[in-house]
Amino acid sequence: MVAEIITIGDEILIGQIIDTNSAYIASELQKLGVAVYQITSVQDDREHILKALRDAESRAQLVLITGGLGPTKDDITKHTLTEYFEDQLVENQEVLQHIEFLFEKYISTPISDLNRRQAMVPSKARILHNAHGTAPGMWIKGKAAVFVSLPGVPFEMKQLFQDQLVPKIITEFTRPVLLHKTLITYGLGESAIAERIAHWEDSLPVHMKLAYLPNLGKVRLRVSIRGTDPEALQDELQQRLGELKMLISDILFAEEDGEPLEVTLGKLFRAKGKSLAAAESFTGGKIAAQLTAVPGASQYFRGSLVSYATSVKSGLLGVSQALIKEHSVVSEAVACAMAANARKLMHSDIAVATTGNAGPTKGDSKSPIGTVYIALATENGVFAEKFTMGNHRERIVQKSVHKAFELLQKEILKY
Amino acid sequence: MVAEIITIGDEILIGQIIDTNSAYIASELQKLGVAVYQITSVQDDREHILKALRDAESRAQLVLITGGLGPTKDDITKHTLTEYFEDQLVENQEVLQHIEFLFEKYISTPISDLNRRQAMVPSKARILHNAHGTAPGMWIKGKAAVFVSLPGVPFEMKQLFQDQLVPKIITEFTRPVLLHKTLITYGLGESAIAERIAHWEDSLPVHMKLAYLPNLGKVRLRVSIRGTDPEALQDELQQRLGELKMLISDILFAEEDGEPLEVTLGKLFRAKGKSLAAAESFTGGKIAAQLTAVPGASQYFRGSLVSYATSVKSGLLGVSQALIKEHSVVSEAVACAMAANARKLMHSDIAVATTGNAGPTKGDSKSPIGTVYIALATENGVFAEKFTMGNHRERIVQKSVHKAFELLQKEILKY
Repeated sequence: MVAEIITIGDEILIGQIIDTNSAYIASELQKLGVAVYQITSVQDDREHILKALRDAESRAQLVLITGGLGPTKDDITKHTLTEYFEDQLVENQEVLQHIEFLFEKYISTPISDLNRRQAMVPSKARILHNAHGTAPGMWIKGKAAVFVSLPGVPFEMKQLFQDQLVPKIITEFTRPVLLHKTLITYGLGESAIAERIAHWEDSLPVHMKLAYLPNLGKVRLRVSIRGTDPEALQDELQQRLGELKMLISDILFAEEDGEPLEVTLGKLFRAKGKSLAAAESFTGGKIAAQLTAVPGASQYFRGSLVSYATSVKSGLLGVSQALIKEHSVVSEAVACAMAANARKLMHSDIAVATTGNAGPTKGDSKSPIGTVYIALATENGVFAEKFTMGNHRERIVQKSVHKAFELLQKEILKY
Repeated sequence: MVAEIITIGDEILIGQIIDTNSAYIASELQKLGVAVYQITSVQDDREHILKALRDAESRAQLVLITGGLGPTKDDITKHTLTEYFEDQLVENQEVLQHIEFLFEKYISTPISDLNRRQAMVPSKARILHNAHGTAPGMWIKGKAAVFVSLPGVPFEMKQLFQDQLVPKIITEFTRPVLLHKTLITYGLGESAIAERIAHWEDSLPVHMKLAYLPNLGKVRLRVSIRGTDPEALQDELQQRLGELKMLISDILFAEEDGEPLEVTLGKLFRAKGKSLAAAESFTGGKIAAQLTAVPGASQYFRGSLVSYATSVKSGLLGVSQALIKEHSVVSEAVACAMAANARKLMHSDIAVATTGNAGPTKGDSKSPIGTVYIALATENGVFAEKFTMGNHRERIVQKSVHKAFELLQKEILKY
């Protein structure tokens, strides 16, 4: 079974917004065993949309469409869908009542004809209730494929996808089983790994696939398997993974369970009943921001002192000026003092601190751009590690936040 | 002149990565007056890539391809391109020397045959030098279109795009002029605005276009114009915008110059010679993270005390426990105290503070989810505003950070 995604909207084609909906939909469909063959972004243009619908129907059994469902006239998706199915628009009473309800409850301006028109849907469409917005989702059976039209606002789309669409896909389609497992390696380049495991890779059967995903100094190896019997596939995947792991045991860093590191960290800190604080210099609050993006962070995360200016390091954070003068602000000694002080000042079990030079200019430090120190303070003492993170500002910060999370994970697992 | 973008890689189609490259390319092409007709994401599959290349060439004069240029065998872009152009691979000496240089300088493992193979390029390709990576960009003239193959790693692609590709597009293509202007409105819904300006919108000539982009409580109106004479187009756009502004003067919030608010804020604070500090509760460091993502932030941004736990608010940030007990942690009084103390503790001219309840659980506060206070402290005193931001955790934080930036902008403009 194959699906396709069509995103409609000039805002994607002029680069005004990044299309995050497609990645969400593709990854959720994967979990259901539905492979996405192609993603196509088209303009708010009748002819263009019609062609995309025809092309997708010639290849896929399920076509998901996002965008182009708002009330205003630049949104022509609904009319074009109606034309495609040689259908007509009819007023749907349930949708109309929901729109009236939303206006009464949340919106101060009076409901308009344009809003009422959102209750007009193709007569062949089955409605997928949009709890958070006025544009309903629609499920329409075509000749060779089912078409599903979803609202373009990401949080409306996601809710509708989970509540309304997933159960319908499960009942209406027979889906193959598709399993993935990703191994994270560290220390060898993509091509060196490829040479080492060439023999193993060549021996893979046609229903298994290997992909190399290099990122931030690591290479992730994604192994996929496809078939019908989940248990047999799981066994085969595990056996092949076992062979692979033996070949790369010296560089195998972790197995990915699809969960971001900050989520894992949160679970570990809560499970161990330990608290965390941070003192951030060049990471500028990104450690705190990423940790607190996960609900429940308040159960273990005390806070972070973003001491961007040297005066805040020596002031509020209490790192002695003599120490800064002796070692410079980007140094092991300052990183350690930052972590130790953050731990004390915010009364946490563990504290992490970052100081470094992310460029583009050198600022208050003599270190070359890309030099980074990350320190941890615990009840057992304090230590720092030095890293060289390249010369690209955004990546230096990103890699350092990731590295801080790795050090924290290693530490909390000791408890 | 029309362009298309083809992104190659299973990782996009299984939703493992979000395709940010396309948005970057589309928005940079816009600036050059090149319209993107379609974006297509296809699998690492020979047949699929060949079909996408044929389809794109039938519609566009410029086809940009990203992804699929790494050294390992799942990357078949280069071989498929070679086949498409009925060409053969030849070793390029400059590329080979660059790969050897990168290995010598940055990579500890010895150079392998796989890496050397990256210097094999189609004989018809002109090389676009990739300063930061081993996979070169390629410019290949087809029958009806020019094809450009770009590396998939975003920072390599961006650098190459600016340094190598932009100058080449400018010299080799005659491009139409394409201008956009976006007005930001606040206080009326998409459909209410549409009704009000229907007459104006209907009167637009065919070479002008209006789009409604609702987001975070605002509706952005993007007006586009296309033609050949830049000055005449600019005049016509300004005249039509003047008419539009008169119709929406009561809800017109700002004109967008395409620059994020944190960039504008940075410029303003530096121009006025003022410094900024923050105390963040539920925004968890996101104010600091967004401000420090802009190079040069260290010139005005002192730091942020992310006081996620109430104990850090009353401890390090020095908000009195009695005040918290009397008003609760999510209150105007606590927001004001946080801002005033952050200003004093970090010796800044202005300080901003946030306290609120982003859910999903109520935490230490009795306020309903979505209740938010944002306070500013300046030399003239301290004040807070209350907001109700809905019930979606991520959006509550996002909207609040944006609102804090707006309040800061309003304030710094007084100096």
